[in-house]
Amino acid sequence: MDSFVVGVDIGGTGTKFGIVDNVGNVLFSSEISTKKHEQVHTFIDELHEKLSELIDKVGGFGRIKGIGVGAPNGNVYTGNIEYAPNLPWKGVIPLAKMLQDKFRLPVKLTNDANAAAVGEMMYGAAQGMKDFIMITLGTGVGSGIVANGQLIYGHDGFAGELGHTTIIPEGRMHPGTGKKGCLESYASATGVTNTAIELLASSERPSLLRGVPYEQLNSKVVFDAASKGDEIAKEVFDFTGEILGRALANFVMFSSPEAIILFGGLTKSGDFLLKPTREHLEANVIQIFQNKVKILVSHLKESDAAILGASALVWDM
Amino acid sequence: MDSFVVGVDIGGTGTKFGIVDNVGNVLFSSEISTKKHEQVHTFIDELHEKLSELIDKVGGFGRIKGIGVGAPNGNVYTGNIEYAPNLPWKGVIPLAKMLQDKFRLPVKLTNDANAAAVGEMMYGAAQGMKDFIMITLGTGVGSGIVANGQLIYGHDGFAGELGHTTIIPEGRMHPGTGKKGCLESYASATGVTNTAIELLASSERPSLLRGVPYEQLNSKVVFDAASKGDEIAKEVFDFTGEILGRALANFVMFSSPEAIILFGGLTKSGDFLLKPTREHLEANVIQIFQNKVKILVSHLKESDAAILGASALVWDM
Repeated sequence: MDSFVVGVDIGGTGTKFGIVDNVGNVLFSSEISTKKHEQVHTFIDELHEKLSELIDKVGGFGRIKGIGVGAPNGNVYTGNIEYAPNLPWKGVIPLAKMLQDKFRLPVKLTNDANAAAVGEMMYGAAQGMKDFIMITLGTGVGSGIVANGQLIYGHDGFAGELGHTTIIPEGRMHPGTGKKGCLESYASATGVTNTAIELLASSERPSLLRGVPYEQLNSKVVFDAASKGDEIAKEVFDFTGEILGRALANFVMFSSPEAIILFGGLTKSGDFLLKPTREHLEANVIQIFQNKVKILVSHLKESDAAILGASALVWDM
Repeated sequence: MDSFVVGVDIGGTGTKFGIVDNVGNVLFSSEISTKKHEQVHTFIDELHEKLSELIDKVGGFGRIKGIGVGAPNGNVYTGNIEYAPNLPWKGVIPLAKMLQDKFRLPVKLTNDANAAAVGEMMYGAAQGMKDFIMITLGTGVGSGIVANGQLIYGHDGFAGELGHTTIIPEGRMHPGTGKKGCLESYASATGVTNTAIELLASSERPSLLRGVPYEQLNSKVVFDAASKGDEIAKEVFDFTGEILGRALANFVMFSSPEAIILFGGLTKSGDFLLKPTREHLEANVIQIFQNKVKILVSHLKESDAAILGASALVWDM
């Protein structure tokens, strides 16, 4: 009898989960709120209840090989979520152990971007690659690095915090870390909004964005304006792409990946973002790296990608 | 009968080589000029002649397991030296194959900084570590990255060009690459000299360095002046350490190493360089990395370290 695995992707707002077969089909999936659970215990209770319903549909717990979990600040070595700023549960949460006790199944936990990288390697744009970097451009900037066909975890499980590398010394302040000029302060949804506000404030040039109320100014709105030919909106992406390209150039000179896979909301900006990103990547690497590295956008179905990535951890156990 | 390996370290000026036993003793060693050989063939002939004398001393070619070679721009996948700016031989040199044909022994070639990293892992400061970064601070800045106990080569063998990562956008021009603001433009022997010149030119403050002729101004002279309390000389190291610390912070957030091992001439500047380096590393990493990463100076005997590193490649074959 075929066996299946469970993938769970914990985000700050919601948690998605699903049953995955051994060729990467998400057979059944569902979602619960993360945010509403102030206590991790009630979260686990609800996850158990909802997930059990899906597990029953594929023949019960006996058919499940294990549970893979991607979570912000998830640590593969300890199975803990450690000091995740965007989750309701503070401090160190031994989530893998808690899930193992509740479900009586093997559990493997890692950070969400690492899980996404494994998903791309098994089912997505990185199939067959041994060296690539996965960058998630969402509310924040996450990353997973694969070298020699393995995820780079570092000595403590925290490798791949590329969103926090400094690109512009003394640049824009990151409110979460207090550090200045990191990639995440520019190449995230929040970063794009802040760049738009800065550009609008720095001149009186006309722009479609001037009519948008402050709290509605987001990367989608900027993209729509750019699509209509708005110059300031296009400059927002030019600047974002410049910073991202500079950052990617440094990453390339670190691990010389075959490809960089981009994932997440910002990639919907398409060539408005990708064109300047490619240009500035090429302009900032030395000759031996030029015109070698592919920049690919993940083609996994967005709703499935996170579940697939997390589930892929289990096949690797 | 015990077997031995040969380590060869090819530099722009000279090539060192030696016979190494399986616990890392350099039994016999010697050196020839690289520079004087305009043709790689005459270089190989002289290397064969001088190395054969050493091999005879340990009982002949039958006792030799193989030859490990560290060379600038050496590529482990192809066995070639590719476009090395500091060597007399231009273009692509299939050195591993040429040596194999000449010596009739297995040959493994990689870049010099990768070889040094393997040497540190087997015999030096990185013994027992699975995740560390080796940085060589010499005329240039080289690097070797070990993660999961393996060297990171990247998809094409060129991973670990950390000296060329951009630390100061639009910063000091690198004459070899044309890129601005890379680590090597600051944290190398040349970089220290240039920083000294810039600081001397920017004020009329008294300094011991003002009496030094331009062509004699090097990192040793700056160190001697700093040791005598010279303020400008100390500022040269403060600035160099700031750039190096900022760079190391980015590297830490990439692969989360247990330690960074520093090697090469600049490390002789001791705490004048290491203290600001540590401070700026800590100031530029996010919280989960703070007060975790060791900065260690290689304690391998300098004359042996390069040979040991190259030889260690063979035990790994």
